[in-house]
Amino acid sequence: MYNCRMKVSDVGEFGLIEVMANIIDPKRKKGAQWPGLLLSIGDDAAVWRTDDVTQIFTTDSLIENVHFHLDTVSWEDLGWKALAVNLSDIAAMGGMPQYAIVALGLPQDTEVDCVARMYEGMAAIARKHHLVVVGGDTTSAPVVMISVSLLGKALPDLSYPDNLLTRSAAHPGQCIAVTGYLGASGGGLRLLSRGIRPEEKAAWVLAKAHNHPTPRIMEGQILVRNGVRAAMDLSDGLMADLPRLCQASETGARIRMDWLPVHPTLKDLMVEESLELALTGGEDYELLFAADEETINKVKALLTCPVTVIGEMVEDTPGKVTLVDETGKTLPWDKGGWEHFRAKATK
Amino acid sequence: MYNCRMKVSDVGEFGLIEVMANIIDPKRKKGAQWPGLLLSIGDDAAVWRTDDVTQIFTTDSLIENVHFHLDTVSWEDLGWKALAVNLSDIAAMGGMPQYAIVALGLPQDTEVDCVARMYEGMAAIARKHHLVVVGGDTTSAPVVMISVSLLGKALPDLSYPDNLLTRSAAHPGQCIAVTGYLGASGGGLRLLSRGIRPEEKAAWVLAKAHNHPTPRIMEGQILVRNGVRAAMDLSDGLMADLPRLCQASETGARIRMDWLPVHPTLKDLMVEESLELALTGGEDYELLFAADEETINKVKALLTCPVTVIGEMVEDTPGKVTLVDETGKTLPWDKGGWEHFRAKATK
Repeated sequence: MYNCRMKVSDVGEFGLIEVMANIIDPKRKKGAQWPGLLLSIGDDAAVWRTDDVTQIFTTDSLIENVHFHLDTVSWEDLGWKALAVNLSDIAAMGGMPQYAIVALGLPQDTEVDCVARMYEGMAAIARKHHLVVVGGDTTSAPVVMISVSLLGKALPDLSYPDNLLTRSAAHPGQCIAVTGYLGASGGGLRLLSRGIRPEEKAAWVLAKAHNHPTPRIMEGQILVRNGVRAAMDLSDGLMADLPRLCQASETGARIRMDWLPVHPTLKDLMVEESLELALTGGEDYELLFAADEETINKVKALLTCPVTVIGEMVEDTPGKVTLVDETGKTLPWDKGGWEHFRAKATK
Repeated sequence: MYNCRMKVSDVGEFGLIEVMANIIDPKRKKGAQWPGLLLSIGDDAAVWRTDDVTQIFTTDSLIENVHFHLDTVSWEDLGWKALAVNLSDIAAMGGMPQYAIVALGLPQDTEVDCVARMYEGMAAIARKHHLVVVGGDTTSAPVVMISVSLLGKALPDLSYPDNLLTRSAAHPGQCIAVTGYLGASGGGLRLLSRGIRPEEKAAWVLAKAHNHPTPRIMEGQILVRNGVRAAMDLSDGLMADLPRLCQASETGARIRMDWLPVHPTLKDLMVEESLELALTGGEDYELLFAADEETINKVKALLTCPVTVIGEMVEDTPGKVTLVDETGKTLPWDKGGWEHFRAKATK
C-alpha cells in the first residue's frame, strides 16, 4: 500500500493502477462480480460478452511533450499514431476494430489546418482497418492531447475462450515469439531527438517506424484463428512488457539474446545501441506471443511479416525474465522498459 | 470553409467539429454509409445497432484550469463529475450506462492519495448507476486531465426508433420543457471563483450543484418510455444548447422568460445575475426536451424532479431561439452560452 504523502512518481504507473483497481473493484481478485465481464483492468483491453458478441474496449492517449514533440512528428502522423496505438491493443486481443471516439485537447492558437491534417491521418488508418470514427469531444488545453477510445469485437465465428488472445494464457514449455523486428521505433525516437538531415534516408526509416507504426490487426486475427491464446502488444519494450505477460500467466521466461530480431536498419545505423533498443525501446507495436512450436510454425507459414522465436516460457518466479546467451549463460540485466511517472527506467 | 492560417479560436468548437466531420465522413450528409450506425458526430452520443441491442457511445474530458481548478473542487467531486458529465450524455439519449474507461493524465508530483480520492468519487457514482469502470490508461501530463468514454445501451424492451431520445425529433407546436432548475451550477462556479466562506451554507448549495452534478439517467429513461423523442442535456447553457436542438430538428423556438425555473437559491443569493445564469450558465446537466402537452403532463406525473414547460417549438429559421415576455413581446438577446476556443460568449 501507499502512504498519504506519496507522489505518483513514487509508486509509478503500475502502483497507481493497483490503487485504482482496488477502489473501483475491491472484489476483483475473487472473481468477476459483473455478469459477462471477462477481462477488466490489467489486460490490453476490457472484454465482455453479450448474447451474440464478445466486445473489446480500450483507450490510450498521446500528450504533447510526453509522448511526442510537434517538431519531430507531422500532424498527419500524429493522427495516424493516435489511432494506431489503440488499434494495437485490439490486435493484442486478436480482435476486429469497429468504433472509435476521440477526445481532443488543443491550445487556442492551434491552426485549423493542422487539426485537419491530423484528421486526415486518422481517416487514412481508419479506412485501412474498417474502423469508424463516430464522434468525440473537443476542448481547449494547455498542450495537444489526443485520447482515443476504441470498441472492437472478437472474431464472430469463434466463441469464448477460443476467440481471444490474453496475457494470462501462457504455459511453461511454450515458445515465445514476436512479429516483425524490434527496436526500430526506439531508434527512430533517439535519432529524431538528435536531429536527422533530409538526405539521411535510413534514419528516416526508423523515424517512420516511430511516428507511423503499423498495428498488427490482421496478424492478431491469424494468431487467434490458429490456436495461439497468449499474447500482448509491445508498447513499452520487451523487457517491460514480457514480465507482465509472465506475471499474468504465473510463469517465468528465458530469452535468447542472440535470437532477438533486431531491426536491420537499426543494426546498420546504431550498432552499439541496437540491442538495448530492441530490449527496451518501446513503441514497436509488434505482437509478443507464446505457443507450442507446431502452432508457431503454422502461423509463421501464414503471416507475411517475420515471426521469430526469441525464447521460452519456464517455471520460475512469476514475472521473472532471464536473458541468456547462445551457451545458455545468464546475462546480467538491470534496465527495464518505459514506465510513466518513473524518473528513470525501472528494474 | 477555413483558410490555412486560421486558428481554432477563430472557427470555434463547432466550426472545428464541422472540419473534422467532413474529413472523417465526407458522405455523412447523404445518409449513413456504415450499416447499423444510426447517429455519429452531431448528437450527444454515437449510436449503432447490432442484432440484439442499440449501443450508445460517448466521451467527455475535464481538464485542469479549463474545466476546473483544484482549489475549488475536491478530488472526490472531480472523480464524480468526470463520470457524471458522461452519464448525462447517456441520459440525453434515454439510455442505460454500462461500461466506462478512463484516460488519465497526471503531473508527476500528484499525491497518490488524491488519485485514490478521485477514484472513490468515480466508484460512488458508478455504483449508483450500475456502471462498471473496466479499465483505462494513465500517463504523465502537465495538468490533471480526465477523459472518460462511456458505453451504454438503449432500454432493451423497446426497439429503434422508439428507444432513443435524439436532437432531431422535435416538431413545431410541441412544448419545450426542462427537468429540475436552471443556473445553479453557473452560480456556484461564479461564487467559487469569488471565494465562499465555510459558514455560507446557501452558497455551498450552488457550489455543490457545480462540483457534484446529478445526471438524469432515470429521468431520461422515463421520458423515452413515455413517448418523448426529442431531448438533449444542458451542458453549455440553455441559450447555447436549445439552438442546437432546434437546428437538428429544423425548427425555431420561442422561450417564455418568466417561465424559466431559475434555481430558488440562485434567486435568493444572486438576484441580479440569476436570469442570465439560468440562460447561459451551463453545466446544469438537466434534460431539455420537446413533446406534446399530454406527453409532458404524463412524464411530469411520473418524475420526482420538477418539470417545467418553458416555451414552444415554432416554425422559424432552423436554430433560431426567440425570448419573449409574458405579453408575448420579444426580448433582446445578444449573449450565447459557453463555447470552447471562443474568447467570449457567442451570438
